Amino acid sequence: MRALTVTPGEQDSLLVTDMPDPVPGAGELLVEGLALGICGTDREIVASAYGFAPPGEKRLILGHESLGRVRQAPAGSGFVPGDLVVGVVRRPDPVPCQACARGEFDMCRNGRYTEHGIKEIHGFGSELWKVEVDYAVKLDPGLEAVGVLMEPATVLAKAWEHIMRIGARAWFEPRRVLITGAGPIGLLGAMMGKARGLEVHVLDLATEGPKPRLVHDLGGVYHTGSVGEAVEGCRPDIIIEATGVGRLVFDAMENTAAAGIVCLTGVSTAGRHMEVDAGSINRDIVLENDVIFGSVNANLRHYEIAAAALAEADRSWLERLITRRVPLERALEAFHPEPGDVKVVVDLGRE
Amino acid sequence: MRALTVTPGEQDSLLVTDMPDPVPGAGELLVEGLALGICGTDREIVASAYGFAPPGEKRLILGHESLGRVRQAPAGSGFVPGDLVVGVVRRPDPVPCQACARGEFDMCRNGRYTEHGIKEIHGFGSELWKVEVDYAVKLDPGLEAVGVLMEPATVLAKAWEHIMRIGARAWFEPRRVLITGAGPIGLLGAMMGKARGLEVHVLDLATEGPKPRLVHDLGGVYHTGSVGEAVEGCRPDIIIEATGVGRLVFDAMENTAAAGIVCLTGVSTAGRHMEVDAGSINRDIVLENDVIFGSVNANLRHYEIAAAALAEADRSWLERLITRRVPLERALEAFHPEPGDVKVVVDLGRE
Repeated sequence: MRALTVTPGEQDSLLVTDMPDPVPGAGELLVEGLALGICGTDREIVASAYGFAPPGEKRLILGHESLGRVRQAPAGSGFVPGDLVVGVVRRPDPVPCQACARGEFDMCRNGRYTEHGIKEIHGFGSELWKVEVDYAVKLDPGLEAVGVLMEPATVLAKAWEHIMRIGARAWFEPRRVLITGAGPIGLLGAMMGKARGLEVHVLDLATEGPKPRLVHDLGGVYHTGSVGEAVEGCRPDIIIEATGVGRLVFDAMENTAAAGIVCLTGVSTAGRHMEVDAGSINRDIVLENDVIFGSVNANLRHYEIAAAALAEADRSWLERLITRRVPLERALEAFHPEPGDVKVVVDLGRE
Repeated sequence: MRALTVTPGEQDSLLVTDMPDPVPGAGELLVEGLALGICGTDREIVASAYGFAPPGEKRLILGHESLGRVRQAPAGSGFVPGDLVVGVVRRPDPVPCQACARGEFDMCRNGRYTEHGIKEIHGFGSELWKVEVDYAVKLDPGLEAVGVLMEPATVLAKAWEHIMRIGARAWFEPRRVLITGAGPIGLLGAMMGKARGLEVHVLDLATEGPKPRLVHDLGGVYHTGSVGEAVEGCRPDIIIEATGVGRLVFDAMENTAAAGIVCLTGVSTAGRHMEVDAGSINRDIVLENDVIFGSVNANLRHYEIAAAALAEADRSWLERLITRRVPLERALEAFHPEPGDVKVVVDLGRE
């Protein structure tokens, strides 16, 4: 089969190569790849800033934003050929930490997890892949065109769950959320904020392209400019930071309402030095009982929540998040940003 | 009666002056002041950096770390003359926000609360004071020597409650806590960490004086030097930051274990600029699912928790936190730091 592979740590090593067809073991599904979403982590791996091939191998099949169709399923597995399916990204270590032992591998304490397409296990960027039944999530059959958004949606499902659980340490009935960054993470976060009945604001640099309209059609308010300008007169109870840009991270910390919650989801690069007023930031966080927390990855519960959220969402709006599709043989084009990109997807299906 | 008063906004205005005796209304206790703890907020008010007199008055009776003995109590109030009592610091606005309406005035959303000795209502730094029965907390009769530590203990009772509630968003069984700053807040935080069965580390600059011994006698490990050195090889699940020093705040953010929680309790001054690696801080918070939150003030539930914590604690250890006592007529001396100070208390009792 053909697969999108990379040699971690080696520049310009991204290629579409031939790899052996996967052979499903007991309790595993054989899946035909339909689509693969490309995100910042993939770009980081391609830029040789991260990523680990499976032990003993040189190349890693890239891809963790999966969508496929079951070709072969064990009897009694709950899956049948034809089911739309997504593979869970992370696996706990065989000797799990106490969080992983409880199924909370998204909250792994010792860092010895593996991740499909990222860390030590092959990804889903191939014409065929296999996945354990216990780590496969079935999607509504109507989601073929947008199911590739599942993985980013799980990240937001977890983020929102943790926002609400942290908020519940005291009285918490949020009314307003600001999202910084109108990429796929930001927009899916906005969609889930709307689904919770919140007033949704989204801040991004783009003045053209699909982002302003996507926010508007969701019923949200689109802002360009600074965080301070976006929140003027109505500070948000929640900020979801989805850019990883240092200035926005610190602006978010200082611009929530009292008892506000900032959820950081953007993975940034170390070495971005800047000057901050540490006294003012600390004082504001303390005197307002503010919370800043980071959220990464998702466990099986979040996959179930995300699957339900996608099934309930406006499909045509979701489809518009996928602004570019390239076939597997031209997959490298997906790594060259183009104006107006929101989510770029590699189509894996054989013609 | 004599009282410790200040004209907010006016330098060098701290004085022991004569003020009218309080006249308790229905539902109020008349209390003989026993002791008043002095903290950083009092020093900020004395330095004219904060503080508000009651509407229509020029001078504010200072003091929010109270301890007194009931002289007069309404029948059926649950209090009788002779009871040891502490007054709650904060009051909700008569038109409360939704948090205040639920008794969570510590989480006030609109900032229109008042605070005894700080914001618009007289404090407890006087020979006599009055307090509403509903905002008075009875102490174990054996706590006369240390009951003045109640208010700082309530701040920690709330901080620990929120740490555990936030932690409970996922699996959370913390083993190790680091406290930065061995002042009264830090040491009471350490005491409560020990009471929870945690391994307790305390970091402070002091190499002499009572602090190292106080930590040691609690069964904790005392560190000087940097946060990085204090946590080397065993990063803490929880950091309680009790200095407000910018460098420590950011070091705390980067030095927790995965899924770590940093609780900021130190109120710092704005205008402390420093350079930080925003990329690295954000990346660490996200990839480790870390939380940073601020905690200030306390509601009635936290007063009850703190009263129980003091009643169960080692009294002789608590007494050693009070390193200096000055009589009311020499109260100004309490505002001049001396080597070895932990908690300085003004004795209010008439001889």
